[in-house]
Amino acid sequence: MTYQLHYWPNIQGRGEFIRLALEAAGAPYVDVARGDEAAGQGMGAMARYLEDESVARPPFACPFLVDGKRVIGQTPAILLYLAPRLGLVGASEDQRLWTHQIQLTIADFIVEVHDIHHPLGVTLYYEDQKPEALRRAAEFRKHRLSKFLAWFEAIITRNPGNKAGRAPHLVGAKLSYADLSLFQVVEGLTYAIPKAAGKALKKTPGVVAVHEGVARHKRVAAYLASERRLPFNKEGIFRHYPELDG
Amino acid sequence: MTYQLHYWPNIQGRGEFIRLALEAAGAPYVDVARGDEAAGQGMGAMARYLEDESVARPPFACPFLVDGKRVIGQTPAILLYLAPRLGLVGASEDQRLWTHQIQLTIADFIVEVHDIHHPLGVTLYYEDQKPEALRRAAEFRKHRLSKFLAWFEAIITRNPGNKAGRAPHLVGAKLSYADLSLFQVVEGLTYAIPKAAGKALKKTPGVVAVHEGVARHKRVAAYLASERRLPFNKEGIFRHYPELDG
Repeated sequence: MTYQLHYWPNIQGRGEFIRLALEAAGAPYVDVARGDEAAGQGMGAMARYLEDESVARPPFACPFLVDGKRVIGQTPAILLYLAPRLGLVGASEDQRLWTHQIQLTIADFIVEVHDIHHPLGVTLYYEDQKPEALRRAAEFRKHRLSKFLAWFEAIITRNPGNKAGRAPHLVGAKLSYADLSLFQVVEGLTYAIPKAAGKALKKTPGVVAVHEGVARHKRVAAYLASERRLPFNKEGIFRHYPELDG
Repeated sequence: MTYQLHYWPNIQGRGEFIRLALEAAGAPYVDVARGDEAAGQGMGAMARYLEDESVARPPFACPFLVDGKRVIGQTPAILLYLAPRLGLVGASEDQRLWTHQIQLTIADFIVEVHDIHHPLGVTLYYEDQKPEALRRAAEFRKHRLSKFLAWFEAIITRNPGNKAGRAPHLVGAKLSYADLSLFQVVEGLTYAIPKAAGKALKKTPGVVAVHEGVARHKRVAAYLASERRLPFNKEGIFRHYPELDG
């Protein structure tokens, strides 16, 4: 069965956490909104799920996944559903719950990363909230960035599955979707606020090592080098406005 | 087994979504940080889980649940874990995932509700971000409040488990933790921004009916009338600053 991923066609955004999981597992999927309208894909296909009153369980927003009759919204819920099917999470309830807990903390983190350029909300442009963004970004760089990274570092350090000389993971001794998501967060921070991120990451070698391990993953590396990987830009979660980098 | 809930002792906050689930199910639990330090409870007991390096899987923040050796953070993950044990979710994977998806959307909503008084982040006081809060609150009231409530209304309307003359639910024909959480959101909005919430809720009779149904639930009603239910105040997610109500 080919999975259908529905997400904005021009940004990495939240959809990228799903794309990375599908790509790392080599799973068959269609990135629907990037497809051809003539083939029943494109933005119209995505909009139907969000707007058509015949959809019994409509997502609030994209990304969402369609798997046969199932329509699943919310990035962490999509990953919770996909991961056992893609081999990207451990088998026990404890491992699944812990991996999900990490993913939810990543979700909280990226809300804060996003809000450094949108402190007054998504209904206004960045240019309409620039002084507020400067203040929020300063607070984020000073207090929040290192707090989140230190937590990821702590759980990597305490993961008994990690052995010296091998690329570490967040959970157990195998790649999970949480590793892929942390990789994406490091990518995004390094793009958006390179100075602040570089400085903070010097104190979290475990986080850097997880990022490096994921980057070397064969299928992930092939994906990153492909045209399927969209470049960062000024539309997604991670945006490079030099003035927000301190 | 008595569940241990760890959360700030003086606010409803995110902990209230867990308290409501435990109370509605009549589950045995201790609200640890509200307990006696001499009995090994109180804030010190909570802080140990967050700070002690011997905790293999530390939560990033409270609330967290301790169930035997399990330590589980993140409100939606705690509810995902508790709900099957408390009879507050359907049995199928589809029902569990859909209920969780709703809960994650409620989590997104309350971040936005919180940020109307903290647009520049949690590291500054409200008084230090009042002009920004006025702008963010106006955007929220104008665009976001009705958008979220309309989604809840749509899924209540489309839930085939709901029958005329009976209190509706978000999922299926029985009470789930998502109903309890939506109840709490309506309580909170009505406290924090009574004018805007009252106006918006007039357009979502299904949401109002879910709220009323939960309020009449015997154990929930007993809890709300008890001293265990903390009052709203100016510390939690939902704060009543009249100037933010338009």
